[in-house]
Amino acid sequence: MSNANSLDALIQALRRLPGVGVKSASRMAFHLLQHDREGALHLSQALRQATDSVRHCALCHTFTEAEVCVTCLDPQRDAAKLCVVETPADQSAVERTAAYKGRYFVLMGKLSPLDGIGPKDIGLQKLFDRATDGVVQEVILATNFTAEGEATAHVIGEALRSRGLQVTRLARGVPVGSELEYVDLGTIAHALVDRR
Amino acid sequence: MSNANSLDALIQALRRLPGVGVKSASRMAFHLLQHDREGALHLSQALRQATDSVRHCALCHTFTEAEVCVTCLDPQRDAAKLCVVETPADQSAVERTAAYKGRYFVLMGKLSPLDGIGPKDIGLQKLFDRATDGVVQEVILATNFTAEGEATAHVIGEALRSRGLQVTRLARGVPVGSELEYVDLGTIAHALVDRR
Ligand SMILES: [Zn+2]
Ligand SMILES: [Zn+2]
Repeated sequence: MSNANSLDALIQALRRLPGVGVKSASRMAFHLLQHDREGALHLSQALRQATDSVRHCALCHTFTEAEVCVTCLDPQRDAAKLCVVETPADQSAVERTAAYKGRYFVLMGKLSPLDGIGPKDIGLQKLFDRATDGVVQEVILATNFTAEGEATAHVIGEALRSRGLQVTRLARGVPVGSELEYVDLGTIAHALVDRR
Repeated sequence: MSNANSLDALIQALRRLPGVGVKSASRMAFHLLQHDREGALHLSQALRQATDSVRHCALCHTFTEAEVCVTCLDPQRDAAKLCVVETPADQSAVERTAAYKGRYFVLMGKLSPLDGIGPKDIGLQKLFDRATDGVVQEVILATNFTAEGEATAHVIGEALRSRGLQVTRLARGVPVGSELEYVDLGTIAHALVDRR
């Protein structure tokens, strides 16, 4: 395609990034080589460094460089509450509310049978071990309100209730600050059923 | 932001890619570390390799790993014709029409006073030296039909005509305001035939 094999190889390697097609990859490669070679070397180094040092927290499964992450080590947090989220980004969203002071378990994914992602792939056994350690009393399911997130919450909820734990789910309802006229009907229907 | 410094560093490094904001960068980093560490190492290696070995062709200025690129070395090509394009992607679009058998000069950019990109940044002197080597008889301006591409073509055309060269421009078959990379090949082929 181009006059340089290593340029073609770079374009192919960039295409492995999610959401990057051949046009975007070509544009990225062109930009880096023409305008930002320092950025290219910086990214090369950051990729190697992260791949070498980022692993999963032994307790909550999120990304960390230590054996146990700083959130799990924080003694101020209520160890009786365990909030289950899909990804570190979701955990970060819950943290920003400042409305939760318990602990987390990060699935690093969701059940998705169509994509071949089953209980083993998202470490459900690790979650069950953690939730039944005798300290945790309430598990709050904060997976996304998508079909897959709901299915994941359902499977986890069933398993943990059968082990005698209190399991709750984030409330469904109308987003704060929104006008009913613009909220989808399914959300309004759920908010009606869950009214309190 | 996260529990891992090298993860944050990776997200920052990914943001230097064009069109990648903090959400996309986070998603990319998550994907690579959770699902494709081999891809991350592969990309790291490809970035270093390309940065080390890709340079500019001594004759046409495009990306190459050799002193002179394969297109410039091709003896079948008509050395009396020189087609000036902005980027390797534009050159590739002209090539795919199979309607042009001359040589190329790749500006690797365009004049853009607002962005501080002047004649030196896009190697116009190198183009003038090349075009006045005594072999080139016709210079075909195939810069994009955008405001900046037209301005670039105007500046180059004026300079080369004053040096006694025949200068033509792709015909206005190419829709005004569009970029060559995205134009259908038939339109580009017609514009080549109708050049003036
Ligand atoms: Zn942790
Ligand atoms: Zn060349």
